[in-house]
Amino acid sequence: MSRSARWEARREAIVDTSAQLFARRGYHATGITELCEANDLGKGALYHYIESKEALLASIHDRVMDEVMLGADRVADAGGSPSEQLAGLGRALLDVIHRYPDHVWVFLHEFPALTGERAEKFRARRGEYERRVEAVLRAGVRSGEFRKLDPWLTARAWLGMHNYTYLWLKPGGRLTARAVARPFAEIFMRGIQGAE
Amino acid sequence: MSRSARWEARREAIVDTSAQLFARRGYHATGITELCEANDLGKGALYHYIESKEALLASIHDRVMDEVMLGADRVADAGGSPSEQLAGLGRALLDVIHRYPDHVWVFLHEFPALTGERAEKFRARRGEYERRVEAVLRAGVRSGEFRKLDPWLTARAWLGMHNYTYLWLKPGGRLTARAVARPFAEIFMRGIQGAE
Repeated sequence: MSRSARWEARREAIVDTSAQLFARRGYHATGITELCEANDLGKGALYHYIESKEALLASIHDRVMDEVMLGADRVADAGGSPSEQLAGLGRALLDVIHRYPDHVWVFLHEFPALTGERAEKFRARRGEYERRVEAVLRAGVRSGEFRKLDPWLTARAWLGMHNYTYLWLKPGGRLTARAVARPFAEIFMRGIQGAE
Repeated sequence: MSRSARWEARREAIVDTSAQLFARRGYHATGITELCEANDLGKGALYHYIESKEALLASIHDRVMDEVMLGADRVADAGGSPSEQLAGLGRALLDVIHRYPDHVWVFLHEFPALTGERAEKFRARRGEYERRVEAVLRAGVRSGEFRKLDPWLTARAWLGMHNYTYLWLKPGGRLTARAVARPFAEIFMRGIQGAE
């Protein structure tokens, strides 16, 4: 491994460990001292990898958004009907929630702690994903596959149903992401299908 | 007002003000000093109304659960078909989320901070509500109104869709609780209806 690849790998590990800590204890209540201890690093060494505590929080958010957008891109590349696309987005989203329970917990709880440009960037990325969901709903309405519906509100129903699984969908749990995605897609798709 | 009614009213006001503070800053990061300042009380006076910071957190949870269970009782008393009951539960739940944004934020984010008996009590009450939703789903499957479905998982889909509105359903916002409850019920009911 090159020096920069080692730095990158260590930084990623710090982001993961810190996500665990923030998820258990809360962002505001977790100090640099605790981050140093959890990562087995001195203060100077920690700052060699992260700019600030808030930069660390932003990296946790980016990790989630990177994975979520990667999934969304794969779904878009695969093509298919709006129903197929929406089902694909659901599978991909639940897969991220299932694989990154701590990151997602921090993502969903601590986003108000991001400030300035970091908050802007987060809002923009989150908005980009939400608009993907809305676009699939709009496409389905246009094609007559979905009934006439409010894309914004319907996207919020879909996002809530899927995002909220972070409370109980855990690695090693009773249910796999796929086992949840299928019945969820069935409920949602029947719920918005075109036939009156 | 009697002395005990005045005490009760002041205590309620302290719970509300503290919910605001916990929602903005996080439970762990909010100290007794900040709670005293926000409530314009000295430390001794604050402890005249609350036993501890955790008792305050438990009271915020109770406020939400009291309202949610009151709504669920009204729906049960009104009777009607499982579809009507589920729609009623949705309206009642969104109404609480809409009226208590800070309490609900704290409720959904800070429940892991409750310990011992308080955590037990919270889990029991939350579980009681969730079982009400599952019971309505089961009744609908039995009557043939809903298709054969997993009541636990379907209840989680329903809870996620409704609970997650806490992020954007706010007093004075663009949408009323009723304006959200109707399309949500339409999606969900079509999604689980019996006709194959």
